[in-house]
Amino acid sequence: VSLTDTFPVYECGVDSSRPVWTFGGVEPLISLTPPALVSLHTEDCFCGLIRTPADRFTEVCTMPFVNPQAGPIEVRGAEPGDTLAVHLLSIEPAREWAASTNIPLFGALTGTSMTPTLQEPLAERVWIWEIDRAARTCTFVPHDTAAPISLPLDPMFGTVGVAPAGAEVRSSLVPGPYGGNLDTPEMRVGVTVYLGVNVPGAMLSLGDGHARQGEGEPCGVAVESAMDALIAIDLIKGVDTPWPRLESDRHLISTGSARPLEDAFRIAQADLITWVGRETGLGPLEAHQLLSQIVESPLANVCNPAYTAVAKVAKGLLPARTDRYAGVHERWRAASRAQGP
Amino acid sequence: VSLTDTFPVYECGVDSSRPVWTFGGVEPLISLTPPALVSLHTEDCFCGLIRTPADRFTEVCTMPFVNPQAGPIEVRGAEPGDTLAVHLLSIEPAREWAASTNIPLFGALTGTSMTPTLQEPLAERVWIWEIDRAARTCTFVPHDTAAPISLPLDPMFGTVGVAPAGAEVRSSLVPGPYGGNLDTPEMRVGVTVYLGVNVPGAMLSLGDGHARQGEGEPCGVAVESAMDALIAIDLIKGVDTPWPRLESDRHLISTGSARPLEDAFRIAQADLITWVGRETGLGPLEAHQLLSQIVESPLANVCNPAYTAVAKVAKGLLPARTDRYAGVHERWRAASRAQGP
Amino acid sequence: VSLTDTFPVYECGVDSSRPVWTFGGVEPLISLTPPALVSLHTEDCFCGLIRTPADRFTEVCTMPFVNPQAGPIEVRGAEPGDTLAVHLLSIEPAREWAASTNIPLFGALTGTSMTPTLQEPLAERVWIWEIDRAARTCTFVPHDTAAPISLPLDPMFGTVGVAPAGAEVRSSLVPGPYGGNLDTPEMRVGVTVYLGVNVPGAMLSLGDGHARQGEGEPCGVAVESAMDALIAIDLIKGVDTPWPRLESDRHLISTGSARPLEDAFRIAQADLITWVGRETGLGPLEAHQLLSQIVESPLANVCNPAYTAVAKVAKGLLPARTDRYAGVHERWRAASRAQGP
Amino acid sequence: VSLTDTFPVYECGVDSSRPVWTFGGVEPLISLTPPALVSLHTEDCFCGLIRTPADRFTEVCTMPFVNPQAGPIEVRGAEPGDTLAVHLLSIEPAREWAASTNIPLFGALTGTSMTPTLQEPLAERVWIWEIDRAARTCTFVPHDTAAPISLPLDPMFGTVGVAPAGAEVRSSLVPGPYGGNLDTPEMRVGVTVYLGVNVPGAMLSLGDGHARQGEGEPCGVAVESAMDALIAIDLIKGVDTPWPRLESDRHLISTGSARPLEDAFRIAQADLITWVGRETGLGPLEAHQLLSQIVESPLANVCNPAYTAVAKVAKGLLPARTDRYAGVHERWRAASRAQGP
Repeated sequence: VSLTDTFPVYECGVDSSRPVWTFGGVEPLISLTPPALVSLHTEDCFCGLIRTPADRFTEVCTMPFVNPQAGPIEVRGAEPGDTLAVHLLSIEPAREWAASTNIPLFGALTGTSMTPTLQEPLAERVWIWEIDRAARTCTFVPHDTAAPISLPLDPMFGTVGVAPAGAEVRSSLVPGPYGGNLDTPEMRVGVTVYLGVNVPGAMLSLGDGHARQGEGEPCGVAVESAMDALIAIDLIKGVDTPWPRLESDRHLISTGSARPLEDAFRIAQADLITWVGRETGLGPLEAHQLLSQIVESPLANVCNPAYTAVAKVAKGLLPARTDRYAGVHERWRAASRAQGP
Repeated sequence: VSLTDTFPVYECGVDSSRPVWTFGGVEPLISLTPPALVSLHTEDCFCGLIRTPADRFTEVCTMPFVNPQAGPIEVRGAEPGDTLAVHLLSIEPAREWAASTNIPLFGALTGTSMTPTLQEPLAERVWIWEIDRAARTCTFVPHDTAAPISLPLDPMFGTVGVAPAGAEVRSSLVPGPYGGNLDTPEMRVGVTVYLGVNVPGAMLSLGDGHARQGEGEPCGVAVESAMDALIAIDLIKGVDTPWPRLESDRHLISTGSARPLEDAFRIAQADLITWVGRETGLGPLEAHQLLSQIVESPLANVCNPAYTAVAKVAKGLLPARTDRYAGVHERWRAASRAQGP
Repeated sequence: VSLTDTFPVYECGVDSSRPVWTFGGVEPLISLTPPALVSLHTEDCFCGLIRTPADRFTEVCTMPFVNPQAGPIEVRGAEPGDTLAVHLLSIEPAREWAASTNIPLFGALTGTSMTPTLQEPLAERVWIWEIDRAARTCTFVPHDTAAPISLPLDPMFGTVGVAPAGAEVRSSLVPGPYGGNLDTPEMRVGVTVYLGVNVPGAMLSLGDGHARQGEGEPCGVAVESAMDALIAIDLIKGVDTPWPRLESDRHLISTGSARPLEDAFRIAQADLITWVGRETGLGPLEAHQLLSQIVESPLANVCNPAYTAVAKVAKGLLPARTDRYAGVHERWRAASRAQGP
Repeated sequence: VSLTDTFPVYECGVDSSRPVWTFGGVEPLISLTPPALVSLHTEDCFCGLIRTPADRFTEVCTMPFVNPQAGPIEVRGAEPGDTLAVHLLSIEPAREWAASTNIPLFGALTGTSMTPTLQEPLAERVWIWEIDRAARTCTFVPHDTAAPISLPLDPMFGTVGVAPAGAEVRSSLVPGPYGGNLDTPEMRVGVTVYLGVNVPGAMLSLGDGHARQGEGEPCGVAVESAMDALIAIDLIKGVDTPWPRLESDRHLISTGSARPLEDAFRIAQADLITWVGRETGLGPLEAHQLLSQIVESPLANVCNPAYTAVAKVAKGLLPARTDRYAGVHERWRAASRAQGP
């Protein structure tokens, strides 16, 4: 039985007549009752305007108008205090190419608008990557040497978020407790994302697809690609999630977004202590001790207005549990596996 | 042919009559001519003084007198501008138990002497972990629930360092360009560590063995264990290494140590750009672009006076090379494999 | 001649039927054509709900709903690329008392939601300060010793801001390029504030009056007071102001708001270099050198979601100029002096 | 009666045959029994090697060999747990000129070795300042405009420090709990500096004189000048001082040195809470509340390997006390005033 036969499937994309550059502050594009599927079509972070090495970011784009969002999706019944679960069923590059560039004064290894220096900006370069969907590769074509380098495709979404709390509206460049521009390579197919709901309807949006991305996204730009995706949307009533969490078959994953980076680290680690405490019955100091010996701490982004750190723990090192978040991850994974590849 | 038949083997341990708490500023305990092997015996970070849950850190230890060093080892012929290569052949827990604790006002999730708050310190708890060398496990025995949790042994050294530059002497709690208290789980068997030489003889020391450690060492203390180890020491003349690097069979690994954490990240990433530039012929902006899509960025420690970030890249994603650092890693690995397990 | 006879005077306060907790995202309360005066009435940051030592913040308030704003004030003709000038003619405490407290998990010397620790929060205490408007004092009444301490009144506004750029809406707890919760004691009578306009009408609001405040506002709370104030609003067309600036009779003052604190410092210093460059004709490196020897760098707040640093330079150390920002500060000061005390 | 008739006067300068680049790790140059005076002669941070605009730092100096120290001075009887008091009686520029420059990759507004970027370094420029001791001015001569700018002399020492704790040896570029390269303009004539003693004899040294310096020393270099100075050295037995403190006639001043800058701020503020608590009898939360409303928080340096923040409070706002640190500041000030100018 196909998932798309079992659940309603909605279409959602980027409405070019009304571009969405923020989390919050925007009327929903579609509205659905969970559980439901969404066939999602996202533009790349540059709105598809960088197509050749001659298309300079500073000429075709304007900060902060990047990461156009597909959505928002209103999830009926979602209220503050609930958790939205988004399961990523598929994410596929929509074109034969993807783009990357140096955005002047953006990235970890340059002065920026928030870390100003008096030095000259880096030279602006554009790289057009080749995408081979059949071979599952994306290929880096350097400017200054002959040999291209092919890498495995590992598609992901940079931005997955809901409307923020406290009536705030945040740029789609910013990550936070509401999700947003987390830019973590963990946001790949097979993962369930948990986001706390802050406003009625949650107002979910996604975008900023990456054909692949390194941890920390040092230059500030990944292999930026329009995406076709299928996602499942579920709602867990009465369960709060203060910071975005991800669950894969193998890991529990907390995130924290802040500056300086040690605060992002602290938030993610403290959240995982709470989560593992709930899973194991261990008190905070005991869970802290255990996690200090088993946590994995890869970085997500060190370039956005808030940096994002990840804290993850292998489920295999913890007592078995399938009832977390009402078993939503297990359920979608089972349904996904049932329908075959 | 056994390695220990081929190369001279020196004995080196902790001289309890003259404890070594610093990198630099200490006369060598032994002196050798590379290449050579050292049979190393290290005490745990607490000098073995925490043996039961009743042995409180604040009663048996005094900051900053932790991480007693085995050594220093004078490497004859080493001069500033050279690189010392330390290959880790074996690291084995020396006892049936290991210790961990909350050191008050130390760790990522508490106020500290460098991040003071007016709050009360965390309660001080000691955990004695059980080590089963045959089963390759270490077992966490929580205070507040019944079920112990067994985890795989993954022995490593927290501190590997040489005398610092500029006539400085640094506490064995501190990591830096000279190595030191890096506290990265990457420092395991099979890895070669590259350290720039700052003073004649290099003055290498090691210590702070961990039966295992999570990335970031959030509580500030790992599964602390005395260790018996075998290491190989080699010297690469005329090659400088500004920040500690590690090489495994699968990865090139750079480290950076600084506060705030984003600066540690920047140092490690910039160093890996230089390294990968040398491996591939790519210029800095090109290597930056490539690494932005493939780098792995796990944290090492977020608790020491300087935090340590790791930047690593899979060799398999880069053109094949075996001549880096004069092929020293390949050579020791081949020798190690030749002698069997 | 009285200022209030020369210019139109508008009334503006806190509309309790529609509390304003954000910069941006709110319809204007009043609309005026500059130059104009506004007779302003602001509530304290607690909405006046902390009146006795028994009124605990955690019982009467809810984060982030503090700093209720008077306004927004729509300034007709203001467009992106213009600068709004707000001259502070008078700021007077509106009551015989003011309030301060420890907000749990807020402030520089405690773990917070952005710098989480596992320690217990600080005890929650309330201090009711006595205001003597005739004597120009506010008096601290300690809980644990007998002798009250009287201090000079030095009234100021914690929050002065316009709607942010990029369609963002920010909590009135947050400072940024749009002004907001800067919490600098420089925001006192006699000062002109320059704010870049981001949306048509600018949408100015003010609030969070302090009877006085130390630099850095370490505990996160000042001597919080409702205020009656008179402000002048002017508009400088076609002149941009990227970060909030203040001008007093004696100083040019730039601000920067970011984390970590060194980035707030960098932003303020870089902005002052630009400003002084324009005043003196010095290029960036020359102005940098000069300011490195004469800049004053007091902190504003080290407790808000972004920290604020101030960079100020004595006008007396620079060549005389009266034409900056179309002479708006000189003009209002002259008009203010003309009418006598 | 002259001070120099009442107390023994020692001579101390920079021994060019044995330059001192560190705090700790060096044999004393002189030895004295307190109270005593020292007639001090210091070289500028560049060892006097930058004398004309053509003398580039990168050609005549080598990092980290700057800030040559006068001393160390062994203070007989000083032991760990005591406090050394250094009263600054006079500091006079020793030459008709002083030097400043951009040190490439050093300073707050450029990438550095600890905050690496891929951008090109700033251009290297040298400014030779004119010193007029009679007129009490130092004059900035810009490269790119005609008009020099004369500023008041405000001589100070950048480095005042003792040997660090824990057997560490630190570069004279680094500030810390032992003092060192604090680079605060508060270190001027009339001030008493309190430093905790870490090793027998304390091992005091001074250097890095500045004809004047802005707060935060943004470009990393002040108006660097050789100095002739007269200092008084006193010892307070059995009183500890964890971080450097200064006392002037008007202020109590605490310092903190760390990265990120908010940690330097926290250390200084927490230390001042302790100090004011001792002065007033107020408990920590009460002193925190009081200081939150009256503290001044100017920055010292935001360029050194650790940044330094200052927390100061006007004595006039606190109950009168003359017995702090055994009345040492009052005593030297009285003696100083008694001998006339």
